[in-house]
Amino acid sequence: MIFDRNISVFQSCDGEYKESDVVIFSVPMDATCSFRPGTRFAGPAIRTESIVMEWYSPYMEMDLKDYKTCDIGDLDIPVGDVEMDLDIISSITKDILNDNKKTMMIGGEHLVTYGTIREYVKKYPDLNIIHFDAHTDLRDEFLGRKLSHATVLKKCYEMLNGGSLYQFGIRSGDKSEFEWAKKHIFQQKFNTNGIDEVVKKLKDKPVYITIDLDVLDPSIFPGTGTPEAGGITFKELMDAILTMRGLNKIVGADMVELSPDYDPSHVSTQVACKVLRELVLLLHKNK
Amino acid sequence: MIFDRNISVFQSCDGEYKESDVVIFSVPMDATCSFRPGTRFAGPAIRTESIVMEWYSPYMEMDLKDYKTCDIGDLDIPVGDVEMDLDIISSITKDILNDNKKTMMIGGEHLVTYGTIREYVKKYPDLNIIHFDAHTDLRDEFLGRKLSHATVLKKCYEMLNGGSLYQFGIRSGDKSEFEWAKKHIFQQKFNTNGIDEVVKKLKDKPVYITIDLDVLDPSIFPGTGTPEAGGITFKELMDAILTMRGLNKIVGADMVELSPDYDPSHVSTQVACKVLRELVLLLHKNK
Amino acid sequence: MIFDRNISVFQSCDGEYKESDVVIFSVPMDATCSFRPGTRFAGPAIRTESIVMEWYSPYMEMDLKDYKTCDIGDLDIPVGDVEMDLDIISSITKDILNDNKKTMMIGGEHLVTYGTIREYVKKYPDLNIIHFDAHTDLRDEFLGRKLSHATVLKKCYEMLNGGSLYQFGIRSGDKSEFEWAKKHIFQQKFNTNGIDEVVKKLKDKPVYITIDLDVLDPSIFPGTGTPEAGGITFKELMDAILTMRGLNKIVGADMVELSPDYDPSHVSTQVACKVLRELVLLLHKNK
Amino acid sequence: MIFDRNISVFQSCDGEYKESDVVIFSVPMDATCSFRPGTRFAGPAIRTESIVMEWYSPYMEMDLKDYKTCDIGDLDIPVGDVEMDLDIISSITKDILNDNKKTMMIGGEHLVTYGTIREYVKKYPDLNIIHFDAHTDLRDEFLGRKLSHATVLKKCYEMLNGGSLYQFGIRSGDKSEFEWAKKHIFQQKFNTNGIDEVVKKLKDKPVYITIDLDVLDPSIFPGTGTPEAGGITFKELMDAILTMRGLNKIVGADMVELSPDYDPSHVSTQVACKVLRELVLLLHKNK
Amino acid sequence: MIFDRNISVFQSCDGEYKESDVVIFSVPMDATCSFRPGTRFAGPAIRTESIVMEWYSPYMEMDLKDYKTCDIGDLDIPVGDVEMDLDIISSITKDILNDNKKTMMIGGEHLVTYGTIREYVKKYPDLNIIHFDAHTDLRDEFLGRKLSHATVLKKCYEMLNGGSLYQFGIRSGDKSEFEWAKKHIFQQKFNTNGIDEVVKKLKDKPVYITIDLDVLDPSIFPGTGTPEAGGITFKELMDAILTMRGLNKIVGADMVELSPDYDPSHVSTQVACKVLRELVLLLHKNK
Amino acid sequence: MIFDRNISVFQSCDGEYKESDVVIFSVPMDATCSFRPGTRFAGPAIRTESIVMEWYSPYMEMDLKDYKTCDIGDLDIPVGDVEMDLDIISSITKDILNDNKKTMMIGGEHLVTYGTIREYVKKYPDLNIIHFDAHTDLRDEFLGRKLSHATVLKKCYEMLNGGSLYQFGIRSGDKSEFEWAKKHIFQQKFNTNGIDEVVKKLKDKPVYITIDLDVLDPSIFPGTGTPEAGGITFKELMDAILTMRGLNKIVGADMVELSPDYDPSHVSTQVACKVLRELVLLLHKNK
Repeated sequence: MIFDRNISVFQSCDGEYKESDVVIFSVPMDATCSFRPGTRFAGPAIRTESIVMEWYSPYMEMDLKDYKTCDIGDLDIPVGDVEMDLDIISSITKDILNDNKKTMMIGGEHLVTYGTIREYVKKYPDLNIIHFDAHTDLRDEFLGRKLSHATVLKKCYEMLNGGSLYQFGIRSGDKSEFEWAKKHIFQQKFNTNGIDEVVKKLKDKPVYITIDLDVLDPSIFPGTGTPEAGGITFKELMDAILTMRGLNKIVGADMVELSPDYDPSHVSTQVACKVLRELVLLLHKNK
Repeated sequence: MIFDRNISVFQSCDGEYKESDVVIFSVPMDATCSFRPGTRFAGPAIRTESIVMEWYSPYMEMDLKDYKTCDIGDLDIPVGDVEMDLDIISSITKDILNDNKKTMMIGGEHLVTYGTIREYVKKYPDLNIIHFDAHTDLRDEFLGRKLSHATVLKKCYEMLNGGSLYQFGIRSGDKSEFEWAKKHIFQQKFNTNGIDEVVKKLKDKPVYITIDLDVLDPSIFPGTGTPEAGGITFKELMDAILTMRGLNKIVGADMVELSPDYDPSHVSTQVACKVLRELVLLLHKNK
Repeated sequence: MIFDRNISVFQSCDGEYKESDVVIFSVPMDATCSFRPGTRFAGPAIRTESIVMEWYSPYMEMDLKDYKTCDIGDLDIPVGDVEMDLDIISSITKDILNDNKKTMMIGGEHLVTYGTIREYVKKYPDLNIIHFDAHTDLRDEFLGRKLSHATVLKKCYEMLNGGSLYQFGIRSGDKSEFEWAKKHIFQQKFNTNGIDEVVKKLKDKPVYITIDLDVLDPSIFPGTGTPEAGGITFKELMDAILTMRGLNKIVGADMVELSPDYDPSHVSTQVACKVLRELVLLLHKNK
Repeated sequence: MIFDRNISVFQSCDGEYKESDVVIFSVPMDATCSFRPGTRFAGPAIRTESIVMEWYSPYMEMDLKDYKTCDIGDLDIPVGDVEMDLDIISSITKDILNDNKKTMMIGGEHLVTYGTIREYVKKYPDLNIIHFDAHTDLRDEFLGRKLSHATVLKKCYEMLNGGSLYQFGIRSGDKSEFEWAKKHIFQQKFNTNGIDEVVKKLKDKPVYITIDLDVLDPSIFPGTGTPEAGGITFKELMDAILTMRGLNKIVGADMVELSPDYDPSHVSTQVACKVLRELVLLLHKNK
Repeated sequence: MIFDRNISVFQSCDGEYKESDVVIFSVPMDATCSFRPGTRFAGPAIRTESIVMEWYSPYMEMDLKDYKTCDIGDLDIPVGDVEMDLDIISSITKDILNDNKKTMMIGGEHLVTYGTIREYVKKYPDLNIIHFDAHTDLRDEFLGRKLSHATVLKKCYEMLNGGSLYQFGIRSGDKSEFEWAKKHIFQQKFNTNGIDEVVKKLKDKPVYITIDLDVLDPSIFPGTGTPEAGGITFKELMDAILTMRGLNKIVGADMVELSPDYDPSHVSTQVACKVLRELVLLLHKNK
Repeated sequence: MIFDRNISVFQSCDGEYKESDVVIFSVPMDATCSFRPGTRFAGPAIRTESIVMEWYSPYMEMDLKDYKTCDIGDLDIPVGDVEMDLDIISSITKDILNDNKKTMMIGGEHLVTYGTIREYVKKYPDLNIIHFDAHTDLRDEFLGRKLSHATVLKKCYEMLNGGSLYQFGIRSGDKSEFEWAKKHIFQQKFNTNGIDEVVKKLKDKPVYITIDLDVLDPSIFPGTGTPEAGGITFKELMDAILTMRGLNKIVGADMVELSPDYDPSHVSTQVACKVLRELVLLLHKNK
């Protein structure tokens, strides 16, 4: 008899790398977090607790079991060395893009998005970013750092060529960030109104989706570093995801800022699992 | 001076058995639970914490103190012997029905409902079931068991004669369950829309109400074994309960799946107490 | 080199007393609490955790840094001596009103409001009170006490001369309290409907705002002594606050009943911080 | 069929009052608590969780089932009215002593002991008190109150006639309290050394035992209002209890300061259950 | 580039099955648990959190990296079907024993031990069992079941031929169990005294070690279903393990009853990781 | 009337800087933490909760009120920039040493010690370090970083001239670290044996004390990033501190690695408060 070493993947995402169209990886990085750290534990928590989640989505009416997804686990990154962490993310992203697969990245803190976008803009020069978040993340620098969870979308925006940044659910930031946004990008405060128009506009453009889970109200998602009351409900987020089925070219996605230890009821992790299920299905649908 | 041994009942439900129209009992059973167990502790938690709840309902504009309800506590059941547990539930239900009283059962896991329905269909052959839940509970078997929290409503449905099953709030299940439901029963996904029509239709029919509290969104009810994001709000549930005042023949009810230890804030237990208050009043109103 | 002893104030409220228009103080009192105590810890929790909150409000489009607010910390009160506690609150309130500043009081239990109102009615004989709460707080006495968190608004009402009491969000109380309210005051059950009309009516009258944070649904505010399901959302509360910008003479405010230890995710404290930011800005706007 | 209303008593202590030699009651009072309140919830927590505890003690080699004990539950006391609370305790104690039974009181805060001792000294003028605690509780007044959890043993001491006070495990207090103790009573700091000698000395004298559970190290008993590191282990406390079997006239006992909500693992409540089992057996043995 | 699906094993136990001398598996079974369930989650928790533990043991002065251990993960067992669960355990055990490897099983509840012992006695007819536990586990039946966590060691004992059962740390059980033990086996109450003699006696005999982690005091191990105050310290357990290096023929081991969700500080899981590290090293040393 | 902005200092340490002999500061830095972060919150937690601790030490028989100590609060440091954080620590330390005061630093992670020692060795070239810890902290580099919580004592050691490093309580590390220690320094594994001899040896030498609170057993100190079972008890640590009264020239101290959010019972914070009280008194005694 031969037994295998224990495999631990997100619900039903046990495809071999070669045959899979979507590749999940997680990044245990929270070094620039300014308040409660702990998003580094998100990946293993999601894998372990996804066991209880159904593989069928009654929202999408699609089934994880009908698609090939490979989950390669946590990246092996040095703690506290931000530049090297970002390089590793970029390198992995590059490999996966070279193999014509899509990345589905799980944070860690939001700065991880910088690492993937850096590669995505090489492959898709006219990339657009749809961004769900409580926070603007549009500072030029934060506490003396240029690369930080609080500056990340500004730095991503600056790498775009022709594409743009579309923000939803924003309800926290510095006055100057809100003013900059008014002039340069689409920013929907407090809710997801306008998502239909954005989807129509970007219909055939390459789009990357980044979801900071703290866009959700802390009532349903307390397990995050900087919870901000006044967020959207789970149903609003799900509606937005369903609306994005109207996009024809979603090229990659990430979901960040789950900090599982700050939620003793584990509900935040269950929410993250379900959002991840829908995102994986969205990436597959859209192939 | 003579002192009595300590009595512990749900808020104001301290009627003697003989004089009471409604009888509360709880079942500390969670043996077939597939994820987080602990619903066995629901009964004592509800009794202890109901002390802080008002006995007057501003929703119903009725007062628990104006009605006679007897709370006989946790059933004494062997742990881990599902068949025997169900037999005990059926036996108690039979006794109470024989005395022309209504049962108000507190779970435990949802399988307890099988134990009562088995008796109710004897007394009310044309029984209907109104069912609030996040999960379909319509499997034929689950992990090799025919009787399980995941099959319970299917098994109950199969015992009905003429009556039917009406589901609300469903958002999790296997694809085949959703397909079966479409063909055989009324199933409202995600919300409680359509409750008015169902109430009209069943106006004078015998109806049993079973509320799996996980129909509520985990934001307001995290303390349950399998929390499912995207649930209904407390106000939606309360509205549905108020709408059911239009039923003239509610013959019994249960409320299941509170797992108090998974909610360190105790809010889930408070929610359960309030739902129980309204259900008890509904059973009395409807006499 | 000279270092200062550690100062700990609510976010950006580090004005000197003399130059400040609004004065924050907190009251570590929860002696008459009938269920879960612990609101005594609210003040320090709010100060410590406000560090993560932005000083700019995208709701008000105002910035805490643009106004002078002095935070003088917890009052030094004897535990368990209700009368003396109330006297100290009154005395501090009197001093601050004499200096023509506004008080922004943080509870503690709701009874603290009695201590300030006692002084406010001296300065503003025609004072009106706008009150957000889950509970009526209109009993004549409670568990044998005339002054209690459950009687406080009744006692405040009795001190008013010409002004009145306007309640919103009420969903728990004794039958007699609801009946009394119907006859004597404006009471909006369950939600904040009607706030517009009340604001119009009180436009130029002196108004004191008292927010019992348990008016919020426990999904977003579990950290309180007596959580009551069925409350208003954070957005509803925020809308009500924004509506109150239509009042021209808000003379003082308080926010009570945060019990931080009952919320392991700390979300309740974050909610309280944000409500406090908006209240402070409202008091300043309204000068 | 007749069912009984739910009875909830401490493990196996379901004797009728008349036939019982020991009477358990609990006091939901924590009004003078200076730090974390919540000891009011101790009684119901102990009753509910004692279900898992064996009724046989391998320490005493005695069995709860072999003795008659009546548990009459929480006293019904007004919250926040210390004098009335103490009167109720005294009244109950008097009734039970008149019936020639022993009281086994569960706190609540330590001040409850004042209420019983006030009656015990009437029946046993030469009463002695053996006291386990982290705190001296020997202040003359505390925060302006003469009767407080911090003064209670001083006030009890002052009521003694001929008997004295013996303290063990003390490790926290004001300098003046330690100095007073040195002059007037037996006080063992940090541990239970000397218990043998005290037991020998008091062999045939009437003795009342009061155990503030915070005498235990917070490692094993975190669930209390004022945890003090450096306490005794559970085994040391158990050894002391076993040693006290050498006393021939233990006339009553209490156990105070369990605050169950501050211990999410529930271990503190289990510890309290086991200490209570041993105390009940000690009271019976000693008849 | 080829990436692998995510592997999740206990710290450094990433050997391939063929080359490994010790095989780790975990059993997510807690069906007969009589109080707090949740031990089913132990395996994944231990794997995830072992990442922070050093692979070098300063106690053993051995290094996990120097040995080949294969961790094959959670067994796939049906929930709530005790007989089938035990059959699966036996079957896996048989396969591993056939390959001349040792099993290192992680519970789940203690009944899992029955499943392995059933096979071990076939291979080692003169097997002895060294058992660490708070509970006797020597009932003949429990709540109507013959096979239960409360009867498991009695049932194992009955399968032994010539070998015997040696218990340490026992402090909870029914009177009759203690009396039976006195007559038939070696039972050390409360502590591990006598372990040296037992090790000498069993020096060259085949020995199976079963550690119910609740033998530890709840101060260091709160995360278990039935915590029992008065347990041994971590150092005492470690000393006992070091003493067992004197055994020349340890043939297998298990470690049961970690219930990770009942320990919000995660310390219990860390303790379990360290005990597991030492047991794995002990099994290797002893080859 | 003039009110002051709220001052928040460690219990009774409200001296003005000029008049104080000991200066407390805390460092909210946990950037290189390899497992659970959150030690950044230690300072405010200690200040807030020290309110309940007595200012008199029955261990030292000294009183905080009899000495002048200034608490200047959290240093204002950029998150995630380790070098700059260390520079700020060094700069503050230099200022305080120049004023002939002693520093009492609160971590944050253990790397903060590098920042102070860097200055101390300038003023006291023959400095010795007494170090309490679960971990060796003697790596040359860790996860690619030379300066890390896992290398800090090695780097400190390398700055010493003539003085040496004395470690106590060590129970976790890489094999090579233990081997290096054996050759170069005094290292007491598992406990504090030998502290008397070290104190005698260093009697008149300049000594800096650094206490990583994880030297304590996690039973009494769960609230830390990397809890290690098998630690010393609070009493052993207190004994070691009392023994160090034999040193005539303690020049500074720190206490690190409290992570308050990982201890819902708050006991770890209370432990830290008490250790801090004793350390402050030790620094004063030793002037």
